[in-house]
Amino acid sequence: MADTMHLDPAYLKEQIRAWLREDIGPGDISSLAILPEGHRSRAVIHAKQAGVAAGLPVAEAVFAEVDASLAVKRVAREGAALAVGDVLLEVEGSTLSILSGERLALNLLQRLSGIATATRAFVDAVEGVEPKPRIVDTRKTTPGMRQLEKYAVRVGGGHNHRFALFDAVMLKDNHIKAAGGVKEAVARARAYAPHTMRIEVEVESLEQVEQAIEAGADIIMLDNMDTARMTEAVSRIRRASPRIVVEASGGVTLSTVRAIAETGVDVISVGGLTHSVKALDISLDLGEKKEVRA
Amino acid sequence: MADTMHLDPAYLKEQIRAWLREDIGPGDISSLAILPEGHRSRAVIHAKQAGVAAGLPVAEAVFAEVDASLAVKRVAREGAALAVGDVLLEVEGSTLSILSGERLALNLLQRLSGIATATRAFVDAVEGVEPKPRIVDTRKTTPGMRQLEKYAVRVGGGHNHRFALFDAVMLKDNHIKAAGGVKEAVARARAYAPHTMRIEVEVESLEQVEQAIEAGADIIMLDNMDTARMTEAVSRIRRASPRIVVEASGGVTLSTVRAIAETGVDVISVGGLTHSVKALDISLDLGEKKEVRA
Amino acid sequence: MADTMHLDPAYLKEQIRAWLREDIGPGDISSLAILPEGHRSRAVIHAKQAGVAAGLPVAEAVFAEVDASLAVKRVAREGAALAVGDVLLEVEGSTLSILSGERLALNLLQRLSGIATATRAFVDAVEGVEPKPRIVDTRKTTPGMRQLEKYAVRVGGGHNHRFALFDAVMLKDNHIKAAGGVKEAVARARAYAPHTMRIEVEVESLEQVEQAIEAGADIIMLDNMDTARMTEAVSRIRRASPRIVVEASGGVTLSTVRAIAETGVDVISVGGLTHSVKALDISLDLGEKKEVRA
Amino acid sequence: MADTMHLDPAYLKEQIRAWLREDIGPGDISSLAILPEGHRSRAVIHAKQAGVAAGLPVAEAVFAEVDASLAVKRVAREGAALAVGDVLLEVEGSTLSILSGERLALNLLQRLSGIATATRAFVDAVEGVEPKPRIVDTRKTTPGMRQLEKYAVRVGGGHNHRFALFDAVMLKDNHIKAAGGVKEAVARARAYAPHTMRIEVEVESLEQVEQAIEAGADIIMLDNMDTARMTEAVSRIRRASPRIVVEASGGVTLSTVRAIAETGVDVISVGGLTHSVKALDISLDLGEKKEVRA
Amino acid sequence: MADTMHLDPAYLKEQIRAWLREDIGPGDISSLAILPEGHRSRAVIHAKQAGVAAGLPVAEAVFAEVDASLAVKRVAREGAALAVGDVLLEVEGSTLSILSGERLALNLLQRLSGIATATRAFVDAVEGVEPKPRIVDTRKTTPGMRQLEKYAVRVGGGHNHRFALFDAVMLKDNHIKAAGGVKEAVARARAYAPHTMRIEVEVESLEQVEQAIEAGADIIMLDNMDTARMTEAVSRIRRASPRIVVEASGGVTLSTVRAIAETGVDVISVGGLTHSVKALDISLDLGEKKEVRA
Amino acid sequence: MADTMHLDPAYLKEQIRAWLREDIGPGDISSLAILPEGHRSRAVIHAKQAGVAAGLPVAEAVFAEVDASLAVKRVAREGAALAVGDVLLEVEGSTLSILSGERLALNLLQRLSGIATATRAFVDAVEGVEPKPRIVDTRKTTPGMRQLEKYAVRVGGGHNHRFALFDAVMLKDNHIKAAGGVKEAVARARAYAPHTMRIEVEVESLEQVEQAIEAGADIIMLDNMDTARMTEAVSRIRRASPRIVVEASGGVTLSTVRAIAETGVDVISVGGLTHSVKALDISLDLGEKKEVRA
Repeated sequence: MADTMHLDPAYLKEQIRAWLREDIGPGDISSLAILPEGHRSRAVIHAKQAGVAAGLPVAEAVFAEVDASLAVKRVAREGAALAVGDVLLEVEGSTLSILSGERLALNLLQRLSGIATATRAFVDAVEGVEPKPRIVDTRKTTPGMRQLEKYAVRVGGGHNHRFALFDAVMLKDNHIKAAGGVKEAVARARAYAPHTMRIEVEVESLEQVEQAIEAGADIIMLDNMDTARMTEAVSRIRRASPRIVVEASGGVTLSTVRAIAETGVDVISVGGLTHSVKALDISLDLGEKKEVRA
Repeated sequence: MADTMHLDPAYLKEQIRAWLREDIGPGDISSLAILPEGHRSRAVIHAKQAGVAAGLPVAEAVFAEVDASLAVKRVAREGAALAVGDVLLEVEGSTLSILSGERLALNLLQRLSGIATATRAFVDAVEGVEPKPRIVDTRKTTPGMRQLEKYAVRVGGGHNHRFALFDAVMLKDNHIKAAGGVKEAVARARAYAPHTMRIEVEVESLEQVEQAIEAGADIIMLDNMDTARMTEAVSRIRRASPRIVVEASGGVTLSTVRAIAETGVDVISVGGLTHSVKALDISLDLGEKKEVRA
Repeated sequence: MADTMHLDPAYLKEQIRAWLREDIGPGDISSLAILPEGHRSRAVIHAKQAGVAAGLPVAEAVFAEVDASLAVKRVAREGAALAVGDVLLEVEGSTLSILSGERLALNLLQRLSGIATATRAFVDAVEGVEPKPRIVDTRKTTPGMRQLEKYAVRVGGGHNHRFALFDAVMLKDNHIKAAGGVKEAVARARAYAPHTMRIEVEVESLEQVEQAIEAGADIIMLDNMDTARMTEAVSRIRRASPRIVVEASGGVTLSTVRAIAETGVDVISVGGLTHSVKALDISLDLGEKKEVRA
Repeated sequence: MADTMHLDPAYLKEQIRAWLREDIGPGDISSLAILPEGHRSRAVIHAKQAGVAAGLPVAEAVFAEVDASLAVKRVAREGAALAVGDVLLEVEGSTLSILSGERLALNLLQRLSGIATATRAFVDAVEGVEPKPRIVDTRKTTPGMRQLEKYAVRVGGGHNHRFALFDAVMLKDNHIKAAGGVKEAVARARAYAPHTMRIEVEVESLEQVEQAIEAGADIIMLDNMDTARMTEAVSRIRRASPRIVVEASGGVTLSTVRAIAETGVDVISVGGLTHSVKALDISLDLGEKKEVRA
Repeated sequence: MADTMHLDPAYLKEQIRAWLREDIGPGDISSLAILPEGHRSRAVIHAKQAGVAAGLPVAEAVFAEVDASLAVKRVAREGAALAVGDVLLEVEGSTLSILSGERLALNLLQRLSGIATATRAFVDAVEGVEPKPRIVDTRKTTPGMRQLEKYAVRVGGGHNHRFALFDAVMLKDNHIKAAGGVKEAVARARAYAPHTMRIEVEVESLEQVEQAIEAGADIIMLDNMDTARMTEAVSRIRRASPRIVVEASGGVTLSTVRAIAETGVDVISVGGLTHSVKALDISLDLGEKKEVRA
Repeated sequence: MADTMHLDPAYLKEQIRAWLREDIGPGDISSLAILPEGHRSRAVIHAKQAGVAAGLPVAEAVFAEVDASLAVKRVAREGAALAVGDVLLEVEGSTLSILSGERLALNLLQRLSGIATATRAFVDAVEGVEPKPRIVDTRKTTPGMRQLEKYAVRVGGGHNHRFALFDAVMLKDNHIKAAGGVKEAVARARAYAPHTMRIEVEVESLEQVEQAIEAGADIIMLDNMDTARMTEAVSRIRRASPRIVVEASGGVTLSTVRAIAETGVDVISVGGLTHSVKALDISLDLGEKKEVRA
């Protein structure tokens, strides 16, 4: 099966360096003051809350960047359901190095696992609906963290929407106004965009749905419609063409997502997956001092 | 009064460039396809939820970086209480430029205002307690966003704890173990650290409180104690010396913060201010097309 | 009409800085040795060969980066047909600054105009064919110059294929082998890729054309087929579905492009537009010394 | 013998990272979608056109940067004459990694081999002329690629002219005008430049040749002279001093280079070596899937 | 004991790359011209002047960055007293690599050892004074070299003052004037700064000493006082509180430092440690050619 | 006259940003705490020691980078002889901005003026010797500061030697040994290096002088010879050819430089100009508060 877990190692490495500098800068004064030369420890990273593990390769990359001689052992599987107390990673080596990487590794694990946990909840909430729609993210990500956050959505069982402004065409209200109508907007987009991209149009009314169909949109996004109207929109679109993808969007929550799924849409986009992340509680315990190298 | 709102413009500029590249890359295909040459608009950024405004200078810097010719007018005051519908900023100029900066500006405003809003709630919750403790943040921030997130805490009326590992001494359990005791740890830290830094010791029991007092700690952090024990700890510390700063930490929430404040501690640190941000709902509306320059 | 000429100014600025450093480094020794303090000149950049002008905003950005006080006047229009002797730009100000930017500005203008000139020739060669196919570029660009080279293709009247590996799905021979067949490959791609992307499949035989149709490919790329086979492929694809885009690729030259266009394909991709650029001959003449500022 | 093949590995590494990001960005969607976890292949890079191999260590560095675990075997020698079908490199390992590096490696190999091939042709064209002049490059290189392109010229048997504005003194028409004459220009340059540099003067007439000799120029560059005038210039310079180096420049082509060489000049500079590169056709074939690691 | 020798390896690596580029750029022409392929040597780095060794790990990192296959052996101990002729490091491997790193490694070793040597002299000069004051550095460091220079001070037996503007509060004359007095300035600083920082006040008179005591300053810096006045200031401060740290500053030299120490201050800051470094004479000798690899 | 004062503004800007970050990082806590919003001042930068002013445009660039709205007035001329009390610059504007740039501006001014002052002393020491030799610098500069330090040497009246390894050929003992003799080394260098470079050979004995002459060296550097031997060497070289440049090098001091000059050498290189800089004492005084903007 496809490697949905892929993360660009060069990108990661560079980001991690900048993030470590943010936290360490000219040095971890407390540890430098205290630790005897060569002090070594064994650390365990474990869940203090149930959820979905995400970010294990990221945390590993943090420790590798801090000190390539740290031994890191992955205990949990990326994407696994964690119970309280479950161990994610074990790290062994220089105590100074472990403490230097601790906060960054935890900040990343907590955030990414938080995203995966929320995504899993949304995916589970539409379980059994036929056909099962995709749960997708949005561009409402934390600046500088988009690759990681969208990765965490995939780990949680969701799919990605477009990555950014450069890899898809999405025509919103203002584009349509500027173009002078849905038809004209779709035509211009078709003429300009690479032939590899579908044209998505955002609509807010059934009238606009009709215009989008007529204009030849490939994807129609129903923005902030109630489920009755959504059902009607899906029905009209299906009648017009089986190839048009239908997306629902706008303030979707865990309590509304199933009803939305039942309208028959193909894709449901959820901004909250990334804009309002609740960190999963994960912490690191340092084990007893193992030895002091001469 | 001191300029608590300061943000390093060079740092901001460089981060914003990287963040814009993340979202725009080789170009906003939809807008490039649609917008007539010279198309101009007027945009209004407004609150769709009540809260505290934070990040206005950051959003301004985003638009300035995208296109120096955009006219940006600040309508709300940084730190102001926002009601639904309140306008934060108005932006006028090239529609292409406005749309290029829109998502990044909103992502930042939503996150920073979310932090300021939560901070304000904690600060309000200890109102009237005498002496009123500081609400401070932690190092549990989003990687790459620490300066901005700690700034938002100040905008919300909170204070900052140490910025990173390099600007303060904080002795935790593992430091103490490695040193062979609280006394020895404080002594080593005193010998090593610049004379400009106070020594903070994290304790988990009253016994450790006594050790920290005896060791000459400047700050004692009570980690995850219940309020009864906290009260006792504060009392012992105050008897020992009026100069020792007492900090409470560990899973503090809006419902527990006031009781903690009433134990008499000087500082309460709250990780959730930054690790589990709930975005404040803020959006941008594009006004009617104003003119098309020949 | 859409602003096909857009170039990200922040990206340009950063690249130009690195490129200037490559050529200037610790300083233009010849000019520093010779020029009197405050020496000023007026320079004219003109074509020594007929072709299509491309890169004028890039050259302007070079001079602006070298010295913001240089006055640069655009004489030719981006995309204009140039005759020998036509002036593209005039620059006036510090001679030291003009000479510092000269080589980089010319190297860029010559390359980008070379690409636009070649593209225009391909576009002209399919003039009158109905329906007229798009001439598009490939990923065979100079490392580090892709945005500019793809921009020059648009200036010359061509269109862009996908920008990179991240913004489109293109299934080649090896993907198909790894997946175990065209059908399986398309299914996996559909399951994984964002719903905003079309799925393109590269085929080398009519048998594979049938498989791609059956698998539901959105775009079928005919790789290195002769025109007879291409005509047959187009005919089978059109019968199967009017929505499938057909692309021709593989060693296309000015002498073969029209025959390929006449097979009825929608898109013709030409690697040579960017991998074998013939610079357009453009040079800069420094006018008489105007004045020496006290 | 001297290591003419040297390439700075740190510089290469950094450039390659940027170039990979240009092509891969947030991920190779097609391969991520299709390839089974752990899929491995063996790739062969071979010539589809005769020419001179250049860039093998660069291509190796690309694959090493993508994935240090790829096994890369150099089959051809850098600088070797390639026949159609000759293998340059073999790569074995993760298919995802091979496909990620493929395009960049080929784009570099094709361009550098193209330069080396053209340079070899010029060098061969002056074979037998006594004394044999150097074929050298110019500053008309692709922005950001100068080190690599000048390296490819050496691989092809050429020599390098100055690298940039900072490592040599070259006085052109405008310098001479600004200084008030050849004599004055040479004097100023001599007074200013490090004593390690020769002074080169560009001349367009025999009168200027005389002035340059009198001024004590170390190198005289004959710009765009016909061969009769060139012969006369060489003769006058040789009479004046055996230490003056004579360079010919200006629109030199394969059909004119031998006649120029026969005028007796020491150096012939050829802009077209780098400003109008014709890529050598080189491609990568993926062999059968070898194994799938559990 | 604490690892006072810590240097952030990622920071070092990045700086070293930039510094190598400054010296090597497009290549070491002399060595490339001369050295046979595969030429290897053994180099010895030794002191030509007595002093304190500092920067050995930095020099090692330079050679590692140039060529990971160089074998570097540390002969002297960081912080050791060097006699003339003492060997610091031995390096063996590619001659080209050794010569590429030579100048940078020596420039760093000479500067850092110069700083450590001077610091040791100051520390020795206050030997026997009871209580022995700390010798500390200032922010008068070479731009871009602060981490390394402050490290060298520690190697020489000194301590660090604040690293920069961000990690301590130091109220100078102008802060006090702007605030309207010492009391007000200390109050504002206390209200604004993290609770982890002490407040330092710079005073120039005994009157200001009294004000600083009264204002509750944690550290009082006596700026440019004569020793009589300094003695009186120390006496008043000690009477007021045993917890206030007293620092002496201003034009301290080797001939004045002992008298200053005898006034009883806790800390003596010496700008000259870093602003006027006298390089320790250290050089590299290349041993006989060992072998030429086929 | 030639603009010997040129400094690359883009290079400066980027370095200054990094250097400001080193000193300011997340913020100048003291000033942020104290200064009222909008507090403005007027600062005067003046000499506390006699010497040569160097670095004024650098200091101006520092303040411009901190805050483009600061008004900076240059009072002294770059290269001027400063008496105690002479004003170099005046700065007016935001007090926060002035204090943010103060330390970096002073650190640069002090170092560069220190270099210019020392250079002037060496140049003055050879005044009247006929022909007057050049005083030149070496590569013994502070890592990362070479452009500025070599600039300061020019400001002080000295000249520059080669900038780095890439812009000149200098054959030392080890090159000669590796090549198998002076003759062979010069021949290889001539064959490899660009024709724009002279070949410099370092010699330690009169025998080597003869070899260098015979080998056709363009520059002969007499390394660590006594003046008697140096006189003899100059005499032999002059007899051989008037075109060979003679350089003296090795532990040159103010007390030995005149005797060396009198041997008739053309160039004297002095490592101490940059490796052992004594900062010129320069400081900044903040004038009275001017106004507080509402």
